[in-house]
Amino acid sequence: MKNHQFVIIGLGRFGSSLARELVELGYEVLGIDKDEEAVQDMSQHLTHTVVAESTDEEVLRSLGVRNFDCGVVAIGDDIQASILTTILLKDLGVKKVVAKAMSELHGRVLEKIGVDRVVYPERDMGIRVAHQLVSPNLLDYIELSKDYTIAELAVPKCLNGVSLQDLNPRAKFGCSIVAINKPRGIIIAPTATDVLAEKDVMVVIGTNQQIEQFEESVTR
Amino acid sequence: MKNHQFVIIGLGRFGSSLARELVELGYEVLGIDKDEEAVQDMSQHLTHTVVAESTDEEVLRSLGVRNFDCGVVAIGDDIQASILTTILLKDLGVKKVVAKAMSELHGRVLEKIGVDRVVYPERDMGIRVAHQLVSPNLLDYIELSKDYTIAELAVPKCLNGVSLQDLNPRAKFGCSIVAINKPRGIIIAPTATDVLAEKDVMVVIGTNQQIEQFEESVTR
Amino acid sequence: MKNHQFVIIGLGRFGSSLARELVELGYEVLGIDKDEEAVQDMSQHLTHTVVAESTDEEVLRSLGVRNFDCGVVAIGDDIQASILTTILLKDLGVKKVVAKAMSELHGRVLEKIGVDRVVYPERDMGIRVAHQLVSPNLLDYIELSKDYTIAELAVPKCLNGVSLQDLNPRAKFGCSIVAINKPRGIIIAPTATDVLAEKDVMVVIGTNQQIEQFEESVTR
Amino acid sequence: MKNHQFVIIGLGRFGSSLARELVELGYEVLGIDKDEEAVQDMSQHLTHTVVAESTDEEVLRSLGVRNFDCGVVAIGDDIQASILTTILLKDLGVKKVVAKAMSELHGRVLEKIGVDRVVYPERDMGIRVAHQLVSPNLLDYIELSKDYTIAELAVPKCLNGVSLQDLNPRAKFGCSIVAINKPRGIIIAPTATDVLAEKDVMVVIGTNQQIEQFEESVTR
Amino acid sequence: MKNHQFVIIGLGRFGSSLARELVELGYEVLGIDKDEEAVQDMSQHLTHTVVAESTDEEVLRSLGVRNFDCGVVAIGDDIQASILTTILLKDLGVKKVVAKAMSELHGRVLEKIGVDRVVYPERDMGIRVAHQLVSPNLLDYIELSKDYTIAELAVPKCLNGVSLQDLNPRAKFGCSIVAINKPRGIIIAPTATDVLAEKDVMVVIGTNQQIEQFEESVTR
Amino acid sequence: MKNHQFVIIGLGRFGSSLARELVELGYEVLGIDKDEEAVQDMSQHLTHTVVAESTDEEVLRSLGVRNFDCGVVAIGDDIQASILTTILLKDLGVKKVVAKAMSELHGRVLEKIGVDRVVYPERDMGIRVAHQLVSPNLLDYIELSKDYTIAELAVPKCLNGVSLQDLNPRAKFGCSIVAINKPRGIIIAPTATDVLAEKDVMVVIGTNQQIEQFEESVTR
Amino acid sequence: MKNHQFVIIGLGRFGSSLARELVELGYEVLGIDKDEEAVQDMSQHLTHTVVAESTDEEVLRSLGVRNFDCGVVAIGDDIQASILTTILLKDLGVKKVVAKAMSELHGRVLEKIGVDRVVYPERDMGIRVAHQLVSPNLLDYIELSKDYTIAELAVPKCLNGVSLQDLNPRAKFGCSIVAINKPRGIIIAPTATDVLAEKDVMVVIGTNQQIEQFEESVTR
Amino acid sequence: MKNHQFVIIGLGRFGSSLARELVELGYEVLGIDKDEEAVQDMSQHLTHTVVAESTDEEVLRSLGVRNFDCGVVAIGDDIQASILTTILLKDLGVKKVVAKAMSELHGRVLEKIGVDRVVYPERDMGIRVAHQLVSPNLLDYIELSKDYTIAELAVPKCLNGVSLQDLNPRAKFGCSIVAINKPRGIIIAPTATDVLAEKDVMVVIGTNQQIEQFEESVTR
Repeated sequence: MKNHQFVIIGLGRFGSSLARELVELGYEVLGIDKDEEAVQDMSQHLTHTVVAESTDEEVLRSLGVRNFDCGVVAIGDDIQASILTTILLKDLGVKKVVAKAMSELHGRVLEKIGVDRVVYPERDMGIRVAHQLVSPNLLDYIELSKDYTIAELAVPKCLNGVSLQDLNPRAKFGCSIVAINKPRGIIIAPTATDVLAEKDVMVVIGTNQQIEQFEESVTR
Repeated sequence: MKNHQFVIIGLGRFGSSLARELVELGYEVLGIDKDEEAVQDMSQHLTHTVVAESTDEEVLRSLGVRNFDCGVVAIGDDIQASILTTILLKDLGVKKVVAKAMSELHGRVLEKIGVDRVVYPERDMGIRVAHQLVSPNLLDYIELSKDYTIAELAVPKCLNGVSLQDLNPRAKFGCSIVAINKPRGIIIAPTATDVLAEKDVMVVIGTNQQIEQFEESVTR
Repeated sequence: MKNHQFVIIGLGRFGSSLARELVELGYEVLGIDKDEEAVQDMSQHLTHTVVAESTDEEVLRSLGVRNFDCGVVAIGDDIQASILTTILLKDLGVKKVVAKAMSELHGRVLEKIGVDRVVYPERDMGIRVAHQLVSPNLLDYIELSKDYTIAELAVPKCLNGVSLQDLNPRAKFGCSIVAINKPRGIIIAPTATDVLAEKDVMVVIGTNQQIEQFEESVTR
Repeated sequence: MKNHQFVIIGLGRFGSSLARELVELGYEVLGIDKDEEAVQDMSQHLTHTVVAESTDEEVLRSLGVRNFDCGVVAIGDDIQASILTTILLKDLGVKKVVAKAMSELHGRVLEKIGVDRVVYPERDMGIRVAHQLVSPNLLDYIELSKDYTIAELAVPKCLNGVSLQDLNPRAKFGCSIVAINKPRGIIIAPTATDVLAEKDVMVVIGTNQQIEQFEESVTR
Repeated sequence: MKNHQFVIIGLGRFGSSLARELVELGYEVLGIDKDEEAVQDMSQHLTHTVVAESTDEEVLRSLGVRNFDCGVVAIGDDIQASILTTILLKDLGVKKVVAKAMSELHGRVLEKIGVDRVVYPERDMGIRVAHQLVSPNLLDYIELSKDYTIAELAVPKCLNGVSLQDLNPRAKFGCSIVAINKPRGIIIAPTATDVLAEKDVMVVIGTNQQIEQFEESVTR
Repeated sequence: MKNHQFVIIGLGRFGSSLARELVELGYEVLGIDKDEEAVQDMSQHLTHTVVAESTDEEVLRSLGVRNFDCGVVAIGDDIQASILTTILLKDLGVKKVVAKAMSELHGRVLEKIGVDRVVYPERDMGIRVAHQLVSPNLLDYIELSKDYTIAELAVPKCLNGVSLQDLNPRAKFGCSIVAINKPRGIIIAPTATDVLAEKDVMVVIGTNQQIEQFEESVTR
Repeated sequence: MKNHQFVIIGLGRFGSSLARELVELGYEVLGIDKDEEAVQDMSQHLTHTVVAESTDEEVLRSLGVRNFDCGVVAIGDDIQASILTTILLKDLGVKKVVAKAMSELHGRVLEKIGVDRVVYPERDMGIRVAHQLVSPNLLDYIELSKDYTIAELAVPKCLNGVSLQDLNPRAKFGCSIVAINKPRGIIIAPTATDVLAEKDVMVVIGTNQQIEQFEESVTR
Repeated sequence: MKNHQFVIIGLGRFGSSLARELVELGYEVLGIDKDEEAVQDMSQHLTHTVVAESTDEEVLRSLGVRNFDCGVVAIGDDIQASILTTILLKDLGVKKVVAKAMSELHGRVLEKIGVDRVVYPERDMGIRVAHQLVSPNLLDYIELSKDYTIAELAVPKCLNGVSLQDLNPRAKFGCSIVAINKPRGIIIAPTATDVLAEKDVMVVIGTNQQIEQFEESVTR
């Protein structure tokens, strides 16, 4: 897996963050942007950086883009450039192309022209932050399905010293605590005698409604 | 909890997505933007919408912003407006103020002027997408701590029909499968005799390294 | 056939000319442009005209665009608007969508998103005018295939009074005169005794080379 | 004829297409545009290219424009530049000057200042495409006069295997089939026993009404 | 003569000054400009004023422009609008059309499209002021021919009390004093005994050289 | 007089025409403009030309502007630059400063800050052209006073062969013919027996009313 | 004095601050700005406010500006508008006109056109803040002459409890303490037995050098 | 004290005036602006000048900004740049940071992020000039407290030759004359026999009301 090479086109906030994380994960990344300043800011962080117009087929060809395993079109606000760059990456033979969409309509076009995955960073983060805002203890969560969620919940003050036996969310709300992250280490599949403390974090699995009711009951 | 009222300032991609999700979760939301078109697009989705200049103290005061429990400054690209709006919300007495930062420096200013939480949507989504790109089976994940992660992994073809007993990730890699999401329902705390199928999704807890090794071993 | 209804989006030079011709041919045409002046100029010439933003799905839906047999996306210089409008027309169920492309790359995207026909007005007219420039007698032509062409040639002075028998292009150059357009009427499939006059126009069929040689021989 | 030299001023979509076709037809072409990028794009396709301001008499003089046989003013959207360039070409002594007009009024000025031919690419293509849209089988056509047209018609499915004797358009509609283009070669002046096939293309001469009726009868 | 009606298009510094002078001379003037402010400034000074786009044939027609005896195209800096307006005035049948040219090339186009007179206000005033600058006593002048000039010269201090007999410019320089403008009235064809005074103004006719030498001799 | 040196600031249509005329009259001229193109166009016509910002005191000082006898501020449309440049010329000690005014208010400021002469080229030419328009035979004129004018009148067809005795404008209208410009030479102070011809030009002195009546009587 | 009426033209930071202070001092103020928002912001603070173009003589006349005792031209960044407005105020007969200058050259023009006082707010405040920066105890100061200054100095910690007798600045540095501002009230012409305390403020008169040396000696 | 080093960011009217005054007071000053022209204008007046973007942490670091004793953020109109630069100066460890605020809201942010002093040059000068306008003799003043003021008053004509004994402001109005600035030198703590003259300047201490009444009594 570590042999993967990524070309990231568009080094704005999303693209540059993605590119830097890939480099930190140990992959080679070529970053392309038409803005010289954006490229310069990334030049010490990425494997290669180039100032280039990504809608010019000759330019992409001369950069050897077709040899990359995966291309990410992270262009910020120019829908036209995003679409033209994406079709060029596909036509040049990049195996996997991921593109950021500015709107649902933009996303539809990207899918029609054969992109492998469309991402909507701002929309998705908006949803994620909304959930955290309404559940003060909710640190993060994964939607497993339309119904089921894994939630990472901070243990509130009122649960300090309470054992899982006493709390018993399974019986009361139907959701299960599958792990407790304590300062001294993580407890996976905790037992009834495990005791919560204020700095702990619980990992809970259940339906959205179960977790919501559980979260509300311990927040009061 | 359901009595919470939110004021969202800035109805771009992030702000409008956040605002709509809050409404779907059952909360009242006032959306403010200085761009008439952005407000019009949201008018049928949010409880209230107003075209207003959020850096004008009188305007915010007349909108009764101080009565809101939580304010989110989701202004897109205008750092100055973001900072001035944030300080006004704090000074007007909004209990909790969350603000989106365009850069690390912007975030530093927001923290100095007393914002309760700074969010970096594009940066965070960049990191999240990077992880998904390098692990084809990784659907989503939560970082529990610097070391521990919960990962939602698609069950690859090669694990079709394999029982947890045979797979035994705990013994081989140190990580645990805490749930299996199957088309017919979720299995929490699965037992050794549970069998994986290609359309299933596993929820795995472990250190980053354990999960990475497990994921690579089943990808090959 | 006369029941066809056309919606033309983009009322620039190409779109407005196309729309007016359709009306003159007896069809109903709805003309749409986001520029008020362009719409006003066409309002007395077309069946219906609307000032509207064609990249807004709701707008197109409310105009009943899906009921039209054929849509032409004749947007002038905005590739993004052209692409988004095209995908909307297709998704709304317009049976046949024709779109004008600004460049070969633009044309490729249009084809990928399912357009029925891509036209390149400026490119095609450039080629057509080039042929007329190099053959002073060439009035118009149709390329029947890569090799064969029908050419409409003005009869030059030197052929005034020459009979087809004497001219005999079939024998000398391999191409045939299939019609002679004379001021008093057209002669289809002219015979050997028909005589050319200076104001006449010949319709010649042959290979490009045959016609070129014939044309050059009578130009000298 | 092959000694002709062309100077093309304005290398937009129309001008560059015209210029490239002239080169492919074997002529020498000097391409001039004030936009450096447009010139660079054409530099490998044309005999000579220059970045120059065509409304400056000294510049045109120093480029030796007066030695060219034919000048084409293909300037895109700047009516003033088009007019000033045209008058300079005429005054410098270019024998034949062709100019593209943006509007009928623009065309009138060009004619007054002595241009040899005015072309309206978008308008003409609009008309041409309109005809093709309303006659699905119409591939191309030449207007011989106000009444007579040569049409290139695709043979529809329903005429597969029909002989000209049976079809007899002359008797039924008044128009004549002067050629049939078949995959294996073209038949000029076909006889009554020639049989049509679905992939064939007919060349028909007649009045507009005759061809329209013929076309409609075979489309049903 | 007093029945003349003038339409002035372009109410900048030149056009508005011309229009106001015509009104003061007793003529009817219609002033047209596309700038609302310019029109408003002139509305109380001219017979009629209209805010209108003068390059739109329909607009000019509806204003009844063809009924005017004389049209002046005094458009400031837009060569294209100047040319298009001029051709419209001519085509609509305005008997006499005068147009202001911004450059010599612009003037050439105006003449080709049939303007009756081209004026170059700034150029002409530049020349006039130049002459006045180099001859401090020169108040105004008319060039009668390439050689002969009528000059209006202030009588310098040194000629105070000098009689024409003593001055005798005819004998000394070859030029004649044809009039003396004195505070108490003008003396036409003055005699040898007429005496000059410092506030007087002489009208002198002669060749340029004669007048220049005369002027220099009395300036010392 | 020929030792005068002029500095002309602003090389637009008025300034460049003035500057070139001064050079043709034999004077040294330094032309200054901040626009490089304007300067380049004049560089071969003037003694010296410089691209410079005339509102910068240091720049004017280093150009030795104080050594010039006369400065002309012919700046086109920037009232601020005109005023600041004018005050700098005066403060640097230029003996005579002439400035072009865009409006009456601008002129008032120029006079207050000590300019020696204000010129209004467009306004003055507007008045001059107005007079010529209403008197078709009027070629040029000088206003000697509020009442008296010298007019240069073309001799109309109807006066061909008429002697001054017969015409007798002095008796009939009160104005005098002081010179007749004939193709073969000028006649100063013509006598009663001199005869007019159609190509001649008369120089007439009289009150405005006298000349107007004379002109109208001979135009009919 | 209280009958004075002020008209302030330009309601930027300087003009609006000045206008509000005048109102607080009990005077009537008419505020004028061409920017609607600036006027609206001041409308509740000033006696009258108007959105108007101050360079239009008619406008100023209709506002009755000539009846005001004093006009302040506080226009922000538009030197031309500042000059034209100033000359209009003077010509309309406003008794006293004060104008803000953007630069020394601008100030020179204002003086030439007869302004009664020129102010340079930013320049003067720059100088004032510079002095405060280098003398940490210096709160404010007045320059009485090129040599003498009154300084308002904070009493530093080290002088807490020191009597004027002991401090004796007159003897040691030549400067005199003419007042001491203490929390309980001001002591004018303090005597030798008055004692300083840390929160006190001294008013010192002396030459710049004397005060500087005194200030440095007590800062150490 | 003389070892202090200042870095001034923003070389507009306020910043450049402040910077030059500091240099004249004998301190070292580094001037920074992103506008090349502003820097060039100051380059000969300040110790060091640099064209740099002050919101870039790396740039400030490389300029060694942290070694300066005092930083002044005098950025003109860009609130965002002002805030970001200020937080960088504080974070880099500049001991004392002074910043100019454009508005009260801007000032609040600056204080929250830890600036040591906020200055409002235009607002403060507006207030100062307002006081001078309403008191024609008031030359300058210092507000000692909410009530007490030191005023520098020009001695009006009517007080010429009046002794302090006769004037006796202490008895009549409650305010004291603490110094008289005479052309021949300053009199500190003047006695009852000192006599005022018209060119003198009085320094008066008292409450605002006392000074106002005194000033009005001597103005009449």
